[in-house]
Amino acid sequence: MNKYNPYFANVKEASRKLIRIGNDQAGEVLARLAELLEEKTWFLLAENQKDLDRMDATNPMYDRLALTEERIQGIAREMLAVQKLPSPLHLRLEEKILSNGLYLEKISVPLGVIGVIYEARPNVTLDVFSLALKSGNGLILKGGSDAEFSNRAIIQLIHQVLREFEFPEKAFLLLPSDREATKALLEAVDFVDVIIPRGSQRLIDFVRQNAKVPVIETGAGIVHTYVDESADFEKAKAIILNAKTRRPSVCNSLDCLIIHRSHLPNLEHLIAPLIDAGVEIFADSDAFAALSSNPNISEANERHFGTEFLSLKLSIKTVENLNQALDHIARFSSKHSEAIIAENQEAIDRFLLEVDAAAVYANASTAFTDGAQFGLGAEIGISTQKLHARGPMGLRELTSYKWVVRGNGQVRG
Amino acid sequence: MNKYNPYFANVKEASRKLIRIGNDQAGEVLARLAELLEEKTWFLLAENQKDLDRMDATNPMYDRLALTEERIQGIAREMLAVQKLPSPLHLRLEEKILSNGLYLEKISVPLGVIGVIYEARPNVTLDVFSLALKSGNGLILKGGSDAEFSNRAIIQLIHQVLREFEFPEKAFLLLPSDREATKALLEAVDFVDVIIPRGSQRLIDFVRQNAKVPVIETGAGIVHTYVDESADFEKAKAIILNAKTRRPSVCNSLDCLIIHRSHLPNLEHLIAPLIDAGVEIFADSDAFAALSSNPNISEANERHFGTEFLSLKLSIKTVENLNQALDHIARFSSKHSEAIIAENQEAIDRFLLEVDAAAVYANASTAFTDGAQFGLGAEIGISTQKLHARGPMGLRELTSYKWVVRGNGQVRG
Repeated sequence: MNKYNPYFANVKEASRKLIRIGNDQAGEVLARLAELLEEKTWFLLAENQKDLDRMDATNPMYDRLALTEERIQGIAREMLAVQKLPSPLHLRLEEKILSNGLYLEKISVPLGVIGVIYEARPNVTLDVFSLALKSGNGLILKGGSDAEFSNRAIIQLIHQVLREFEFPEKAFLLLPSDREATKALLEAVDFVDVIIPRGSQRLIDFVRQNAKVPVIETGAGIVHTYVDESADFEKAKAIILNAKTRRPSVCNSLDCLIIHRSHLPNLEHLIAPLIDAGVEIFADSDAFAALSSNPNISEANERHFGTEFLSLKLSIKTVENLNQALDHIARFSSKHSEAIIAENQEAIDRFLLEVDAAAVYANASTAFTDGAQFGLGAEIGISTQKLHARGPMGLRELTSYKWVVRGNGQVRG
Repeated sequence: MNKYNPYFANVKEASRKLIRIGNDQAGEVLARLAELLEEKTWFLLAENQKDLDRMDATNPMYDRLALTEERIQGIAREMLAVQKLPSPLHLRLEEKILSNGLYLEKISVPLGVIGVIYEARPNVTLDVFSLALKSGNGLILKGGSDAEFSNRAIIQLIHQVLREFEFPEKAFLLLPSDREATKALLEAVDFVDVIIPRGSQRLIDFVRQNAKVPVIETGAGIVHTYVDESADFEKAKAIILNAKTRRPSVCNSLDCLIIHRSHLPNLEHLIAPLIDAGVEIFADSDAFAALSSNPNISEANERHFGTEFLSLKLSIKTVENLNQALDHIARFSSKHSEAIIAENQEAIDRFLLEVDAAAVYANASTAFTDGAQFGLGAEIGISTQKLHARGPMGLRELTSYKWVVRGNGQVRG
């Protein structure tokens, strides 16, 4: 027992009432909250400034921590976008009538209580609240300590709106920023149904190592694109440039280019746009030998493979055939997004069948792995595990289901 | 690093090949294995006898451990039933064409490698193999040490058939019965996608406490049936008798009868068939006062609620109204199976909406919570968690999905 469990018990208890809130009512709450965010922008900015004042402005997290009037407007707009999404609840996923007359329905229901552990990004607090309310889930939030003033201000506004609507505000709890609270959350198996960590690999590893509650891992993307012997060279060039440079800091960006040996003579041409964009290349010995000397190109060592760079860096691996490419991917992939560029249909089909990843692509940029792009609406993260939800997680992925069985006295023989 | 990881790596590597095995081929393996089980019955019985010789015949596990000619035939028949089920793989769960021409399909795929930890029931080894092969999953089995000879004999036959068909036998591994092997499996996050414990609550708790790999919890059922004020008395009587006495040792059997106060005068009549069947009753003070003295009826204390009896025992809780029943269930349920007996449609609807359990029933026995009854075919267990799969888990619940994206050069703006 620890001092947080009574609060967790309150969240669980209050969250039972969420299933009775209709989609329209949840939408009204979100609309009102979006309005309040704009009314209280001065308050949010003032509280956020207290956090910013505690952080060195050269810290790479500083920008993610900062709220601005424009960003708050953006958050409010996203909230209204979530409002307009269809409800993920009460959907009849299956139905059957058994021979004894029992009527079975498989109905979507909230997961229950979701714990979210994240870093100093106050926008996450609001994004996650919108999705949780809309999917009928209670929420226990553990934000980064660097964002404590901002997050407290935000949860205050959330609670204010919930009170206005006489909704169970206790179903949405912000934990204080101390390690003991995190530890309690990770072990709260009686109160929390799933924990979603959002942030760095270090955070995710910590959560996985310490959680007793089920975890959905999100984030890490060690992404490959394989240029098959049969590839259209111009397509390959454009796709690779896009996958690497569009937003190098996100999880779907390219980390390792795998090329079929037949392209070595043209490799220089293939990567020229990357060099122009300032990408630093780590080429295996065959690829390195095929390239002219360039300060941005060095020879790869083992640790350049299986690395998520999140920056303008790229490794290159040369293979003899598709099998070697598949083996390399199986060994180093984090099962996020993987692509083949090929015109040979058999190679495409084998790749799409055999590569084990949340999203597998033929002749397209891995930059498309994203909830909005896939038509899921807002996303709470990109799952890299295979249980429950894989790839972009939207509202539907925040639900479970139950079997509803209606009878008129049936007993089992 | 531990000595088991190289074996786990082999399972993972070999299991990659399973996705290429067609449903017909998997079926041929199962048919051949069913045949071989009958051919080698003498061998299985002899090995099983070695295990039985080590166990005291008065041990309650003795019967579960024992194989007989008839039981082996039953296992073979179930294997042929699994053979006939439709494949859960390569199903198109969704498809969409994006405005940029990208073609997305959400396709069912194997989970990858499944770890199963179970007790001294050799039939589980074969049941789980059938389901894993059919769903394209590799398997790491950790059976009870009491069944070690039996399990070794079984895995030998499995490997023999896989070799005959030139299928990757290394994808199916039986671990030796030592604690170190279990520990290694529970921590094998790089090699195992999910662990399913099958057995006692103690086993499940141990797995949950120690696993780093995601776990699907199965089994524990603390089951309630609420007799509403509006209940049809004869229906209630028959349903309660069936739910409690049909098979008291299984997880869907009734543990706590909740009665509306209005039924207290008739409670004696309601439970008469239970008393006749030898059920021991623990009644709360109101119910106790309403019943005549009987050696099988005693007054309940707190620990009789929230207990999975798995035997001919039943607690009785008296409530004033539906809300109290819902609160009692929310507090004590293990979210397995819960039932209401009522004629009032509003009470039924509220119960079915608000009770959070894998299966919620109106006017039927909870004994129906079962994969075969729900039409899922064979079942690997009954999940009591909300992530991934809930309730009976059949072949479909042993799959994940991936997004397959086909383009012709698309990049993201």
